[in-house]
Amino acid sequence: MSKQAKRKHHKHKKYSLPAAGSSPGLIFIDENALKPVIKLYKYNAELYEVKELSSLSNVAQIVADKSFTFWIEIKGYNSLEMFETLSSDFNVNKLVLEDITRTYQRPKFEEYEGYDFAVSRMLNLDENKELDNVQVSFLLTDNALFTLQETYEDCLEPIRARLRGGKGNIRIAGSSYLMYALMDIIVDTYFVILNAWSEDLDAVEDRLFDKPDKSVMFDTQMIKRNLIGIRRVVWPERDKLNDILRSDSTLVTEQTRLYIKDAYDHCIQIIDVVESLKEISISNLDMYLSMISNRMNEIMKVLTIISSIFIPLTFIAGIYGMNFAIQDPVTGKLLPKNMPELYAAHGYLYTMVGMGLIAVAQIIYFWRKGWFK
Amino acid sequence: MSKQAKRKHHKHKKYSLPAAGSSPGLIFIDENALKPVIKLYKYNAELYEVKELSSLSNVAQIVADKSFTFWIEIKGYNSLEMFETLSSDFNVNKLVLEDITRTYQRPKFEEYEGYDFAVSRMLNLDENKELDNVQVSFLLTDNALFTLQETYEDCLEPIRARLRGGKGNIRIAGSSYLMYALMDIIVDTYFVILNAWSEDLDAVEDRLFDKPDKSVMFDTQMIKRNLIGIRRVVWPERDKLNDILRSDSTLVTEQTRLYIKDAYDHCIQIIDVVESLKEISISNLDMYLSMISNRMNEIMKVLTIISSIFIPLTFIAGIYGMNFAIQDPVTGKLLPKNMPELYAAHGYLYTMVGMGLIAVAQIIYFWRKGWFK
Amino acid sequence: MSKQAKRKHHKHKKYSLPAAGSSPGLIFIDENALKPVIKLYKYNAELYEVKELSSLSNVAQIVADKSFTFWIEIKGYNSLEMFETLSSDFNVNKLVLEDITRTYQRPKFEEYEGYDFAVSRMLNLDENKELDNVQVSFLLTDNALFTLQETYEDCLEPIRARLRGGKGNIRIAGSSYLMYALMDIIVDTYFVILNAWSEDLDAVEDRLFDKPDKSVMFDTQMIKRNLIGIRRVVWPERDKLNDILRSDSTLVTEQTRLYIKDAYDHCIQIIDVVESLKEISISNLDMYLSMISNRMNEIMKVLTIISSIFIPLTFIAGIYGMNFAIQDPVTGKLLPKNMPELYAAHGYLYTMVGMGLIAVAQIIYFWRKGWFK
Amino acid sequence: MSKQAKRKHHKHKKYSLPAAGSSPGLIFIDENALKPVIKLYKYNAELYEVKELSSLSNVAQIVADKSFTFWIEIKGYNSLEMFETLSSDFNVNKLVLEDITRTYQRPKFEEYEGYDFAVSRMLNLDENKELDNVQVSFLLTDNALFTLQETYEDCLEPIRARLRGGKGNIRIAGSSYLMYALMDIIVDTYFVILNAWSEDLDAVEDRLFDKPDKSVMFDTQMIKRNLIGIRRVVWPERDKLNDILRSDSTLVTEQTRLYIKDAYDHCIQIIDVVESLKEISISNLDMYLSMISNRMNEIMKVLTIISSIFIPLTFIAGIYGMNFAIQDPVTGKLLPKNMPELYAAHGYLYTMVGMGLIAVAQIIYFWRKGWFK
Amino acid sequence: MSKQAKRKHHKHKKYSLPAAGSSPGLIFIDENALKPVIKLYKYNAELYEVKELSSLSNVAQIVADKSFTFWIEIKGYNSLEMFETLSSDFNVNKLVLEDITRTYQRPKFEEYEGYDFAVSRMLNLDENKELDNVQVSFLLTDNALFTLQETYEDCLEPIRARLRGGKGNIRIAGSSYLMYALMDIIVDTYFVILNAWSEDLDAVEDRLFDKPDKSVMFDTQMIKRNLIGIRRVVWPERDKLNDILRSDSTLVTEQTRLYIKDAYDHCIQIIDVVESLKEISISNLDMYLSMISNRMNEIMKVLTIISSIFIPLTFIAGIYGMNFAIQDPVTGKLLPKNMPELYAAHGYLYTMVGMGLIAVAQIIYFWRKGWFK
Ligand SMILES: [Mg+2]
Ligand SMILES: [Mg+2]
Ligand SMILES: [Mg+2]
Ligand SMILES: [Mg+2]
Ligand SMILES: [Mg+2]
Ligand SMILES: [Mg+2]
Ligand SMILES: [Mg+2]
Ligand SMILES: [Mg+2]
Ligand SMILES: [Mg+2]
Ligand SMILES: [Mg+2]
Ligand SMILES: [Mg+2]
Ligand SMILES: [Mg+2]
Ligand SMILES: [Mg+2]
Ligand SMILES: [Mg+2]
Ligand SMILES: [Mg+2]
Ligand SMILES: [Mg+2]
Ligand SMILES: [Mg+2]
Ligand SMILES: [Mg+2]
Ligand SMILES: [Mg+2]
Ligand SMILES: [Mg+2]
Ligand SMILES: [Mg+2]
Ligand SMILES: [Mg+2]
Ligand SMILES: [Mg+2]
Ligand SMILES: [Mg+2]
Ligand SMILES: [Mg+2]
Ligand SMILES: [Mg+2]
Ligand SMILES: [Mg+2]
Ligand SMILES: [Mg+2]
Ligand SMILES: [Mg+2]
Ligand SMILES: [Mg+2]
Ligand SMILES: [Mg+2]
Repeated sequence: MSKQAKRKHHKHKKYSLPAAGSSPGLIFIDENALKPVIKLYKYNAELYEVKELSSLSNVAQIVADKSFTFWIEIKGYNSLEMFETLSSDFNVNKLVLEDITRTYQRPKFEEYEGYDFAVSRMLNLDENKELDNVQVSFLLTDNALFTLQETYEDCLEPIRARLRGGKGNIRIAGSSYLMYALMDIIVDTYFVILNAWSEDLDAVEDRLFDKPDKSVMFDTQMIKRNLIGIRRVVWPERDKLNDILRSDSTLVTEQTRLYIKDAYDHCIQIIDVVESLKEISISNLDMYLSMISNRMNEIMKVLTIISSIFIPLTFIAGIYGMNFAIQDPVTGKLLPKNMPELYAAHGYLYTMVGMGLIAVAQIIYFWRKGWFK
Repeated sequence: MSKQAKRKHHKHKKYSLPAAGSSPGLIFIDENALKPVIKLYKYNAELYEVKELSSLSNVAQIVADKSFTFWIEIKGYNSLEMFETLSSDFNVNKLVLEDITRTYQRPKFEEYEGYDFAVSRMLNLDENKELDNVQVSFLLTDNALFTLQETYEDCLEPIRARLRGGKGNIRIAGSSYLMYALMDIIVDTYFVILNAWSEDLDAVEDRLFDKPDKSVMFDTQMIKRNLIGIRRVVWPERDKLNDILRSDSTLVTEQTRLYIKDAYDHCIQIIDVVESLKEISISNLDMYLSMISNRMNEIMKVLTIISSIFIPLTFIAGIYGMNFAIQDPVTGKLLPKNMPELYAAHGYLYTMVGMGLIAVAQIIYFWRKGWFK
Repeated sequence: MSKQAKRKHHKHKKYSLPAAGSSPGLIFIDENALKPVIKLYKYNAELYEVKELSSLSNVAQIVADKSFTFWIEIKGYNSLEMFETLSSDFNVNKLVLEDITRTYQRPKFEEYEGYDFAVSRMLNLDENKELDNVQVSFLLTDNALFTLQETYEDCLEPIRARLRGGKGNIRIAGSSYLMYALMDIIVDTYFVILNAWSEDLDAVEDRLFDKPDKSVMFDTQMIKRNLIGIRRVVWPERDKLNDILRSDSTLVTEQTRLYIKDAYDHCIQIIDVVESLKEISISNLDMYLSMISNRMNEIMKVLTIISSIFIPLTFIAGIYGMNFAIQDPVTGKLLPKNMPELYAAHGYLYTMVGMGLIAVAQIIYFWRKGWFK
Repeated sequence: MSKQAKRKHHKHKKYSLPAAGSSPGLIFIDENALKPVIKLYKYNAELYEVKELSSLSNVAQIVADKSFTFWIEIKGYNSLEMFETLSSDFNVNKLVLEDITRTYQRPKFEEYEGYDFAVSRMLNLDENKELDNVQVSFLLTDNALFTLQETYEDCLEPIRARLRGGKGNIRIAGSSYLMYALMDIIVDTYFVILNAWSEDLDAVEDRLFDKPDKSVMFDTQMIKRNLIGIRRVVWPERDKLNDILRSDSTLVTEQTRLYIKDAYDHCIQIIDVVESLKEISISNLDMYLSMISNRMNEIMKVLTIISSIFIPLTFIAGIYGMNFAIQDPVTGKLLPKNMPELYAAHGYLYTMVGMGLIAVAQIIYFWRKGWFK
Repeated sequence: MSKQAKRKHHKHKKYSLPAAGSSPGLIFIDENALKPVIKLYKYNAELYEVKELSSLSNVAQIVADKSFTFWIEIKGYNSLEMFETLSSDFNVNKLVLEDITRTYQRPKFEEYEGYDFAVSRMLNLDENKELDNVQVSFLLTDNALFTLQETYEDCLEPIRARLRGGKGNIRIAGSSYLMYALMDIIVDTYFVILNAWSEDLDAVEDRLFDKPDKSVMFDTQMIKRNLIGIRRVVWPERDKLNDILRSDSTLVTEQTRLYIKDAYDHCIQIIDVVESLKEISISNLDMYLSMISNRMNEIMKVLTIISSIFIPLTFIAGIYGMNFAIQDPVTGKLLPKNMPELYAAHGYLYTMVGMGLIAVAQIIYFWRKGWFK
């Protein structure tokens, strides 16, 4: 196995699970949790403001102003108090808070008294081409959207630019449209990742056709595994978008549903691409196996042709290398039946010709069988 | 790998995706977009006119005349203004316009306020036997049908001929019947493509039975992949036709639904053919693998028979080629136990007969094992 | 490949498809279409008459007599006028007439104004054991049944005998019962075909266990393909029978539905047999592949045992066949280190015994490894 | 192939099918049909009587006494009159009688006017470990149950014992409970059969791990096939029990439905075991194939090591076995460049040492490659 | 096969099934059943008491006090009287009691008059890394929960601690919440087991990439089988939780349903992990097979290169080892055509050079074919 292939084989990610039997609804703060960075975006058709907050303590008061839409962006979970404020001021269920902080949830959408809860999974290929998989949680009220994620990096900058720019629908379409816009950009990045893998697969396929070695097999298996990984995100994502479409939540506007339907279509297109790349991977692995078998056939043909031609000839040479004596060296007795060929005038010549004929016969035989291709 | 097989292995098509996070509903004009060519077909039972338009600007006015049916055929997307007219004059949703210009949509049917939107995928085998896959978008109103495609070529000429001819249903059955007729001809061309592949598969199958080499495997895999590609068009096409059937759109007449049901049947027949060809491909690949294994068996049998017969004989010849001396050449001491066979009167004869017997015994053994078939 | 296997590999059947874009509802008369033979069966509990008709022109008048049930049996499609009479006198939809004349329809059941339309597929093994697949179309009215097929041969004789005989339900149960009886006998012949294939599979299986060669693989693949072919008939047949059961057509009597349920059960039993035979085919192919691998193992064991025993012995014989001289023939110089074994009193004997020991040791080694089974 | 494996490979069972086109509802009496043995069980909480009847002629009268429950047990079908009595006295549909006498029905449940009809399949491993598969048909009325089977043997004795004993529910719970009890015992015997196969599979698995030969493959394939066979009984059995549960037949009491639900659970447990054993079979077959490949690797390693070491050495020995002469024997001319090694003082020694070094180098090479494990 | 692999191959667990035909609803007491240990937990927001009971005789009286919630924990089934008390005092159905004592039930939830019945399966990896699979049965009334299990060990201690601690919801949320808490902890332990297998799989994968031998195959197959085993628990567990969610049992409070939904999510996450690990197992087995084939290729290449180079050379050496005489030793007749090369001045040299050229040509040939990689 090449070093290269080995490098690509990395350990499966482990999540810190709750201790079995711990109380449900426990807010989980990891020991390495990052300090929370909270930003408040306040906007309507005319106005757009961004403010960094130190805590959520007076957000309830702020969002009471229904003439604005608010986006409260929370990154980093190292503050139990922050989650308790969500519970006390916004009546967020403890089970929801646990789902937010246990960041291995599948994409889902759930309706609660006064707010909706949703989960997306933000994927990103890091510099080693490994897949980062970050949970983004959404809490949606009538005029506010909370987004929560464990890490600082995200792929949401274009949305902020559109908010700042103030063009298009985004400043006037309310909190559910903002949630849609964020979910949509997350799904859009899946296309980017799939394009990268598709190019990898093309490159491996070139090697498969040019000079297949076992790295073709290892690399294809790794791509196939990545595809299986993304399937586990994208199928529940599709179900989630469908759940939003079918829900009768009053917090999701009719206009937003139209856009969600569009994101749902994108999600199905992604599923199409994933399934398609997976089938190409499987087909390439099948071809690789066939090519190994074919190559074995070729190796064996070389061995068999050479052995079959020379082993009988060597035997004949061996015959005439035997030392049966035509005269006993001790007694001088004549033994005229012992290898008289050796003393024939053209014995050597006839033998060489005979060998040549045997070789030619075999070559014709193998040629007829198509062994010389 | 043969050059031929390599030529067939082409890169996967890439679409220009929207930048992740771009505003939904953005009309996308590719830099290589073609100049739009717009044709207006105006017809009823008595009259049939075709006119080339330079823009859509007064189409809204034209189609207001409900005593005619109109077909507005748009080819080439290099005009933002044209799409904006669709938005302003015909109230077409921005998301729909995006779907029209992002030409990687799956076949689908959607109802909107005042119009229906549908997508078909026009397939065509180009001169290199590669599959062109062009999106045709439909906007259906009560007395008009807009069709939009990026390229100039199409397979719709027979419909124009029927319109011109004026026989049959087509001139009197309204805009939804025209949409059906166009969708139907697109689906009908799938049969043509499948027939071509079916013949390719037959040809490869002949080679499989006559003289299978690895091109059989490559070519079958390529056909199988093409089939997987067409499946991704034809299954959603079936769903689309079913959606039209089940929709309660008032724009699709009862009579048209009857015809759509017929196109739906054709679609299922195509699915039948696709699945069937796919199973034949898989079966051929399995046979090819069995044949490789069988051939390996045959190669090994040749090697084993020849080696097994001659290696022991060569050993015996080797024995009597040894130089053990019956008399020390230096001291002249007699060594009567050293290879007395060499000095026996019929040593050579007996040895040759013994070798012959061994060879015959082995041939009988292999023959009994069925190795000579 | 054996000639026999090649003979079984026949081209996939092609149907003459409508030209893409041709008007839907076009009646298709093949250039080789047979002259129509039309028979009219008129019967009730008391009376039974058969008459050959030259055209359908006054059938509408005849079937107006509601005190009889009529079976109009049409074979051969070479008469456009006949189909036009069906359209004009019986109000049969043009799309239905197209489905009747384009004889590649899947089994289906459709209700129309005043009549029901159904398709069955009549299968028959011809003398070469190839599958004939003939479309039989049914048009059912309240007291008449039209059956239409392209060819003259059929498997419906027993029904005619039962009509003639006049016993049982058939003379009094109306037109829908007659349609059931015909559909039932068509499905019953599938059992006959499956029994034939089951016996073929048994015969191939015997060869698999006795002396497997590659014809086992070819024949099993051919049977598997035939099974895949019949699946494509029998699954839609099941759906058709179910559609009749669930339909609220007034033309199908309650009593007939009971019988249709029985035919539906037969259809499921056939599906059971098909799936079962398919799994046996796959299992046999898997066994065949295992046996090839096993056989390769045996071939290699023979080669390895013989080579491993004799190659080292031949080497030893080669050693003592070397010509290192104990005395320089030219200078007469003594070279006492050069192969003194050759001049030892029992050199030959010891060498032979040593070779024997090596051979025995190897035989024990291979025997312990279980290579002699 | 071993004799043992061949013995296990038996022909697929054939049923005597109705002639295609025969009247539906024909009662089928096989030529080898057994003489009917009819037993009447009459019981309630207080009384229990068994009587052998010669015919069904006055059973209708007997079962009119609604203060008792009756079980009419019929074994052997050689009496057309008996079935005609069922038709005339109990109004049993002809199609039902056909299903009873054509004993290849799948498990099913059907409601008719005045009675319910059900089919179970009684499985039994005979002394050769082959599966007997006997159809048991049930006709259920409000206070009577008819059971019909072709053969005399059954597995229902424990039910008779419970009836005789009179304990438990069975004497008071009516005819539907009796039907449940019989169906339940039939399903329970499936567990017994699966346990036997599970033990067979364990035994084969032991051989797979200890000394795998091709009988492992044959035996596992046979078990897998048996499992596929039982699947075809147990899935429709599950559907049948579910049909009884969901039916609104007034003949099945609420209490009995509770018990049917319990039998349904057993059926699902059986399906679990079947699927599980099938997956183990497939896994064992995969392991067997891997082990064949591994063994081939080992055989080839032995061959390659021995050949690679000795073939070059034999070549060297061959070199010094050549007869190039240092002095022409005829002319006495000196040829000092011809094989002077042969006349060197330590030529033999150096050659032997050189050969030893080559062998050691190769052994190290192979050892490093891990070929000695 | 290594000893290690053999140790891992253990027999499939057998359950003691009821004798076929035994009365349904029979309470089954195994001969090795443990003495029952009964604990009564009585608690509300203020009070928490644990008491060990010797029998269930006056539990009915105790639980009549509706101001408390009761948990009656029963371990060990060796008391028929205990089950009879459940039947008489709590009206538990005999079929339920049978399901409790026949401990091979799948997870399920059933509603009865006055109580609900549920089954969970408690999994545990014992010290040999084998899976213990213990049935836990639940009987839920309005203010009491009975749990029953055959063995003494369990994984429920954290729940007892939470009850003692009195914090959180558990002391005030009633009997259905307690049932949820117990079910949840049982599902949570599945995560622990899957983590252990995931690590095993990682370790095997390391060996696959470093030095694959057949233990990789055996160990992966064992993990795959374990995964198939846990699938059979976790899919019905999911259905059970869903049944509770959808049921309209009044015994399960609205609040508890919210928590059950959370456990349902966990169950789906577990299914995700199981499917994912299974796909990785299959992928690793595929890679292992590819690697065996690759290795065979390498072995054969070594054999073929060495044989192909030296066999022809040995033949040439054999030629010049032949004893064709240039002068008859007896008659002294000159035979000048017999191997004059042997008496050429540079015969030996030319021969050696010729051999060298042949070897170099072959090496170049093999190198060009890429056989030296
Ligand atoms: Mg998955
Ligand atoms: Mg789409
Ligand atoms: Mg999509
Ligand atoms: Mg898809
Ligand atoms: Mg797919
Ligand atoms: Mg595939
Ligand atoms: Mg697809
Ligand atoms: Mg169709
Ligand atoms: Mg179709
Ligand atoms: Mg189909
Ligand atoms: Mg299919
Ligand atoms: Mg297939
Ligand atoms: Mg199919
Ligand atoms: Mg059936
Ligand atoms: Mg069936
Ligand atoms: Mg079936
Ligand atoms: Mg199946
Ligand atoms: Mg199978
Ligand atoms: Mg089946
Ligand atoms: Mg169950
Ligand atoms: Mg079960
Ligand atoms: Mg199951
Ligand atoms: Mg399964
Ligand atoms: Mg499996
Ligand atoms: Mg498989
Ligand atoms: Mg399962
Ligand atoms: Mg979840
Ligand atoms: Mg999950
Ligand atoms: Mg899943
Ligand atoms: Mg899955
Ligand atoms: Mg996989």
